[in-house]
Amino acid sequence: MVTRLLTNIGELLTNDPEYGDHSAVGRLRDAALVVDEERVLWVGAARDAPAADERRDAAGAGVLPGFVDSHTHLVFAGERSREFEARMAGERYDAGGIASTVAATRAASDDDLRTQCAARYSALGVAGVTTVEVKSGYALDVAGEARLVALASEVTEEVTFLGAHVVPSEFRGDREGYVALVAGEMMRACARARWVDVFCDEGAFDVDEARVVLEAGRAAGHQLRLHANQIRDIGAIELATEFDCASVDHCTHVDDVDVERLAGSSTVATLLPGAEFSTRSAYPSGRRLLDAGVTVALATDCNPGTSYVTSMSFVIALAVREMGMNVDEAVWAATRGGAAALRRDDVGHLAVGARADLVILDAPRAAHLAYRPGTPLVAEVWRARH
Amino acid sequence: MVTRLLTNIGELLTNDPEYGDHSAVGRLRDAALVVDEERVLWVGAARDAPAADERRDAAGAGVLPGFVDSHTHLVFAGERSREFEARMAGERYDAGGIASTVAATRAASDDDLRTQCAARYSALGVAGVTTVEVKSGYALDVAGEARLVALASEVTEEVTFLGAHVVPSEFRGDREGYVALVAGEMMRACARARWVDVFCDEGAFDVDEARVVLEAGRAAGHQLRLHANQIRDIGAIELATEFDCASVDHCTHVDDVDVERLAGSSTVATLLPGAEFSTRSAYPSGRRLLDAGVTVALATDCNPGTSYVTSMSFVIALAVREMGMNVDEAVWAATRGGAAALRRDDVGHLAVGARADLVILDAPRAAHLAYRPGTPLVAEVWRARH
Repeated sequence: MVTRLLTNIGELLTNDPEYGDHSAVGRLRDAALVVDEERVLWVGAARDAPAADERRDAAGAGVLPGFVDSHTHLVFAGERSREFEARMAGERYDAGGIASTVAATRAASDDDLRTQCAARYSALGVAGVTTVEVKSGYALDVAGEARLVALASEVTEEVTFLGAHVVPSEFRGDREGYVALVAGEMMRACARARWVDVFCDEGAFDVDEARVVLEAGRAAGHQLRLHANQIRDIGAIELATEFDCASVDHCTHVDDVDVERLAGSSTVATLLPGAEFSTRSAYPSGRRLLDAGVTVALATDCNPGTSYVTSMSFVIALAVREMGMNVDEAVWAATRGGAAALRRDDVGHLAVGARADLVILDAPRAAHLAYRPGTPLVAEVWRARH
Repeated sequence: MVTRLLTNIGELLTNDPEYGDHSAVGRLRDAALVVDEERVLWVGAARDAPAADERRDAAGAGVLPGFVDSHTHLVFAGERSREFEARMAGERYDAGGIASTVAATRAASDDDLRTQCAARYSALGVAGVTTVEVKSGYALDVAGEARLVALASEVTEEVTFLGAHVVPSEFRGDREGYVALVAGEMMRACARARWVDVFCDEGAFDVDEARVVLEAGRAAGHQLRLHANQIRDIGAIELATEFDCASVDHCTHVDDVDVERLAGSSTVATLLPGAEFSTRSAYPSGRRLLDAGVTVALATDCNPGTSYVTSMSFVIALAVREMGMNVDEAVWAATRGGAAALRRDDVGHLAVGARADLVILDAPRAAHLAYRPGTPLVAEVWRARH
């Protein structure tokens, strides 16, 4: 394999405390690294860099691991900008919310969905995401969810079956029937998904219903994650830690007991401030979770209803402005935190042996991601061969 | 001159109520327009479009006037990301604030300043800005301010002399002497600037000092604008309306009397939410100003200390999320409002006769600028020949 030296890096964040300043982000200045087409081979000071087949001068730019976006809903049809405008204006809007996306997605052809998903995947990629999780959840019937899982599998290995997104209108009178369908035939049709997820919150599924789906998921060999505490605290975090979910996502409303539970667990709290931005809701405190020892991830929650966000830099800027996180914590959460939320050790950091997924900034330091909000600062993305 | 037809526009905002839905943004659907290299020649329904030398299909995209960024500080050297990080962390940081930028700017060569200014100008342009105002204010001595005005003049006609940015350290004991210098020799050295501006606020210049500079500016034939009410209300808005300033910028802290004064004047209130974002300050209410009948503009305030923002889309998203403005109002403020803040009739709208400055979005509607925050949605920029 061809080896490549990237040198004259102004600031390199490795996310491994073994390196550089031994902080959580393992920061080196005047650094270099060598990769082959798959892995990081060498990390250190630029002046000590070994030779390689190719050499690239970063001209003082900042370099960090590729972003790991551990929570997206990329496969959908339609858009809901009018609903967004009505919400921002404080007006009623009764065109269906998630149901309108479900209708548009059901009606769309495979090619149409594939094209739209690819455009969003590309927008994420240009903005520095090198690992992405993609959920189903906008079909809510057996064949449709299987189709969304198949389409998601075309762009990532991190596919999540979210049949338990909301109860579709045709099951309004039979919630139990829908939960049984999700936990049975629908889950079997989506067997290729690595993850099973449930939206366990007010207006979605309650703890008992979520438990049925999680138990079935575990029994079928899936790994588990949960949407929870976005709207209200209905006890979902206890459920998430009981099932050792890899991540519990949103965590907007959490009490001290929940925070302690998370801190004592291996469940990551994934914060999605794009959703609070786009719904004008109060932001969760990243600071409080971090101070308690909880592992925090940041993700885009890219979806057409509540967070049509494809920029992890924007998410980082919000985390710093609104959630009490410093830049290092936010960048870590958007990279290594996302990897932890996917129970991945090979991405989200740049230690020797990690995947050669990295971002070269059009800026000398990662701090510019928050300091220059709204400006696309990802100059180049290097991705390991799969 | 070559004529060019842009057709199949999904949503065209003309910012002229003569067109389309007769709202302030003059919205047309399924529209087309014809331009030559300088002006808009025709606007209407796609089906009625006349022939032109060239034809371009917008494929349903949204089209709007190019952004008019009426408040920037593009010519500076250095960066202050560490100061930003300290501020976000609530820590003291005593490396000088504006003074550190003044020191770096004074020390930089013309070529260095030119290159850095060009990079920021290009970032604004890629993000859809077609008219930009650029201030001096980081030299604060006669030759240095003249140099910044000359460099700014290389990229725009809308150049502002801001010798009255802060009192430089060498005049700490002689504020009166500095004001006299600004209003005299320094202003004469900056005679080519169209505008004279004063930072009239706590910690900068008081109303009496600002009056000296504004009077000299008026006498020398400059047009006037003011930074005011960012930190505190010290009576600057009364001063701005008394001098018929084209714009009073920031307006973060305004009382009801100020709002009434603005509504009864031809002075625009230019809001700069990038500054509130980057200093974690409370946002001004665009809603309150609009409801009172004040003309509101939005601008980036691009500067290295308090708003290193080069995306008008980001500013629009903040205005919608944080300042009670709807999307139409925010887009108008970022285009026609900016033009009003520069007392320009030829830009900021797309009526027949206006400059052919426009933005084609990678989205069907301008609402996506707020609905998809952080995502660069400006696909293409058309600029009139100067």
